[in-house]
Amino acid sequence: MKHIAESTVRRLSLYLRFLEEYEATGHATISSGELAESGGTTSAQVRKDLSFFGSFGKRGMGYTVRDLSIAIREILGLQRPWSVIIIGAGKIGAALAQYRGFTTRGFRVVGVYDRDPARIGTKLEGVTVRAESDLERDIAKLKPDIAVLCVPGDAAQALADRVTAAGIHAVLNFAPTPLKVPKGVALRAVNMATELEILAFGLTNDGALPVR
Amino acid sequence: MKHIAESTVRRLSLYLRFLEEYEATGHATISSGELAESGGTTSAQVRKDLSFFGSFGKRGMGYTVRDLSIAIREILGLQRPWSVIIIGAGKIGAALAQYRGFTTRGFRVVGVYDRDPARIGTKLEGVTVRAESDLERDIAKLKPDIAVLCVPGDAAQALADRVTAAGIHAVLNFAPTPLKVPKGVALRAVNMATELEILAFGLTNDGALPVR
Repeated sequence: MKHIAESTVRRLSLYLRFLEEYEATGHATISSGELAESGGTTSAQVRKDLSFFGSFGKRGMGYTVRDLSIAIREILGLQRPWSVIIIGAGKIGAALAQYRGFTTRGFRVVGVYDRDPARIGTKLEGVTVRAESDLERDIAKLKPDIAVLCVPGDAAQALADRVTAAGIHAVLNFAPTPLKVPKGVALRAVNMATELEILAFGLTNDGALPVR
Repeated sequence: MKHIAESTVRRLSLYLRFLEEYEATGHATISSGELAESGGTTSAQVRKDLSFFGSFGKRGMGYTVRDLSIAIREILGLQRPWSVIIIGAGKIGAALAQYRGFTTRGFRVVGVYDRDPARIGTKLEGVTVRAESDLERDIAKLKPDIAVLCVPGDAAQALADRVTAAGIHAVLNFAPTPLKVPKGVALRAVNMATELEILAFGLTNDGALPVR
């Protein structure tokens, strides 16, 4: 499969969210213009994004909401549930464990881990926080798909090494440090301070930041 | 000023984080190779990123850690503090209000807002949660730089309209919906479910997602 830009995948995710809301309100078809609006983009971009994956919709007729929604779920790999473990039960980790947006999209938190004895054994949304030392054994047993790292920067790489060695193929990194993962492992990073810094750059250098 | 890619700004933020750590350990100079490592990129990319903003370092001598650190802080606009208000004191909002990574980078949370009477009046890291209805008055008085939206998707656009009308020029959106803001307002979005969906796409379509 050829490379797909991250921005395309990100828009597909937005289209899907909108299609689901649109379907819930009883609409059967949708135009590329309406979809474009939902993704903050243009009709031409919508058609281009979808063209990577096949032929959808009919000229002048728009898209069937249900068909396109199913197609995008398949493209994104959301026709099946994904299991997630969260490592680090601090404030961000706990907020993520309780984030309802995950469950509604088919991401199920199957484990939360910490190294702080005061946190181990406590419950977050019905999931008991377990010891980091249990990671390898639990990964072998539960075979989770995705590990979310919510630990301090200096602890993140060692944990990424451990979970990927134990067989996890996707890592979402909330630690404020770049990670290295073996080839074939999908990696994403979210750094809240960086997001604010990009805004500070935009405020400081008027017009220097492209609109997204 | 010409447009600078978001990815460049993101890497500058990573370089800066590394330079600060490097300086703290007593190092005076750094090579582009070491900086590249910190940003998960190549020496050529480091030189290209910095070349947008001027001439730094000497051939064969590397960069002076302190000078480059000051220069990047200036480029990013971090030589001054920025004040931030958080709207929505739910789990994500509360986690952000208490996120230490913000303060260490000069972002100061000056207000937290919610519409739930049960939350109004409670304290998050010494900041009292105030009523959403106070927003306009407080923005006129405190003149905060950045608004962080941590509210449900269906409440986000109306709040973005209100804070930008009240004079805020930068919005960080954690709500799972795309926002429209007036021209001249800097906008960033973080959607945790989307990050997981991009990973699901990467796991489903082996090799389709470019490495970052």
